[in-house]
Amino acid sequence: MSIPLTVGNARVKEARKLSRRPVRTERRLFLADGPKAVEGALRLPDCVVEVFATPAASEAYADVLAPARLVTLVDDRALVSLSDAVSPAGVVALCRHLDVPLSWLVEQRAPASASDPRLLVICADVRDPGNAGTVIRTADAAGAVGVVLAGQSVDVYNPKTVRASVGSVFHLPIALEPDPAAAVEAARAAGYTVLAADGAGDVDLFGADLSGPTAWLFGNEAWGLPDELAALADRRVAIPIHGQAESLNLSTAAAVCLFASARAQRHPA
Amino acid sequence: MSIPLTVGNARVKEARKLSRRPVRTERRLFLADGPKAVEGALRLPDCVVEVFATPAASEAYADVLAPARLVTLVDDRALVSLSDAVSPAGVVALCRHLDVPLSWLVEQRAPASASDPRLLVICADVRDPGNAGTVIRTADAAGAVGVVLAGQSVDVYNPKTVRASVGSVFHLPIALEPDPAAAVEAARAAGYTVLAADGAGDVDLFGADLSGPTAWLFGNEAWGLPDELAALADRRVAIPIHGQAESLNLSTAAAVCLFASARAQRHPA
Repeated sequence: MSIPLTVGNARVKEARKLSRRPVRTERRLFLADGPKAVEGALRLPDCVVEVFATPAASEAYADVLAPARLVTLVDDRALVSLSDAVSPAGVVALCRHLDVPLSWLVEQRAPASASDPRLLVICADVRDPGNAGTVIRTADAAGAVGVVLAGQSVDVYNPKTVRASVGSVFHLPIALEPDPAAAVEAARAAGYTVLAADGAGDVDLFGADLSGPTAWLFGNEAWGLPDELAALADRRVAIPIHGQAESLNLSTAAAVCLFASARAQRHPA
Repeated sequence: MSIPLTVGNARVKEARKLSRRPVRTERRLFLADGPKAVEGALRLPDCVVEVFATPAASEAYADVLAPARLVTLVDDRALVSLSDAVSPAGVVALCRHLDVPLSWLVEQRAPASASDPRLLVICADVRDPGNAGTVIRTADAAGAVGVVLAGQSVDVYNPKTVRASVGSVFHLPIALEPDPAAAVEAARAAGYTVLAADGAGDVDLFGADLSGPTAWLFGNEAWGLPDELAALADRRVAIPIHGQAESLNLSTAAAVCLFASARAQRHPA
């Protein structure tokens, strides 16, 4: 059995630099932390470069690590230095970036017809890493075909985003598009009806026809969708709010909208 | 104009101790941080003891603070010491605890009949302060009549919970009940049908009749509902999960369930 690498080892040090977004972007690499994420990454071809594991975790998660071509043992301190989890589970995969071009996503996953019940998610300027990961997880659970992180959104390879997605960043194709309007136009050109989730919208979510191919457009946590972007959507849809709350937060609003779509598309009344 | 109190002032120091749960519990006091929370607190009779504000914030939020009987000016450092926000807004209210007895909540808010569309939320062992606040906000938005934090749940007066609720801790009656089974029994005795949100449940959320008075029972973030507690519910209801995700997180799952109820109760097909 090889001797576990320590925190000062050159490979561990290089991997640790991936905690910084510019380094991730330049190298097109990121770290996937914990058995769930590592398992998801190992299911994809050509995603995992190597897996770092403590000796204890390499035994505890032997099943998860079985498909890995390269498992590098590291000591506890080295593993902790690669993880931003409060309680690291002991396995971290060094992964290649996964994002696909927007054109590939909308063309490969284009609706076959106006009645094809497909679901696409476009997030514009989502800033909180946990929210982005939660929306990706929720999109996966609602049966979406992909997610576009548009505008000045948080890095999908942020460790908090990867963790909050609980493996879903490895399940769904994700496209990154700096221009949210381009994402909306591409989705519409591919045959999606674009619905803006907008608290001030004039269409009631529970009165809307959601059965056809739908691309949901969600805005920023604090300021929502800018008016000029929401205006590009086919409809502006509001969740009816009761009680004295003024709104929902981004990830709960997305969950309500996406599961209203999943219900209409997959559980017709 | 009075001189702002500094971080060493005895009243500021006493208020600061409320960052600790045992102190909050013993004194039945807590701090509500930011204009949204302070506004909500000031709308309630007998909730706010005093408001701490920086001179700048007392001008910026003069409208919000108008109903306050006592506004104490503090300097920036003293205000920051009372807030756990990353960017404190400059106003913090010292508030009395708001929770109501479980018996009061279920009796005062009991359904008038088996067709009265009332919604109650019971959380068992919710541990993350942000999740608890988000569920309270979502319950408010879905028109719920109250929330029970049962079992070993996070303190509803945790500053992160209060902040994540965006004022909803001041809108809805909240009961604290150490025994989750007692909460379930009390809700049922009051006329609610108790639905356990349970990924392994045998009833499909989108096939269930949700039109009557409903108490939703949600479990812990990591381990869900213990089997013996879920078994006390009238039905165990699962959100249909598509894609490769295995589940939703607590606050998104609660949002999907609560808005499915709101839809059935308020937007009959």
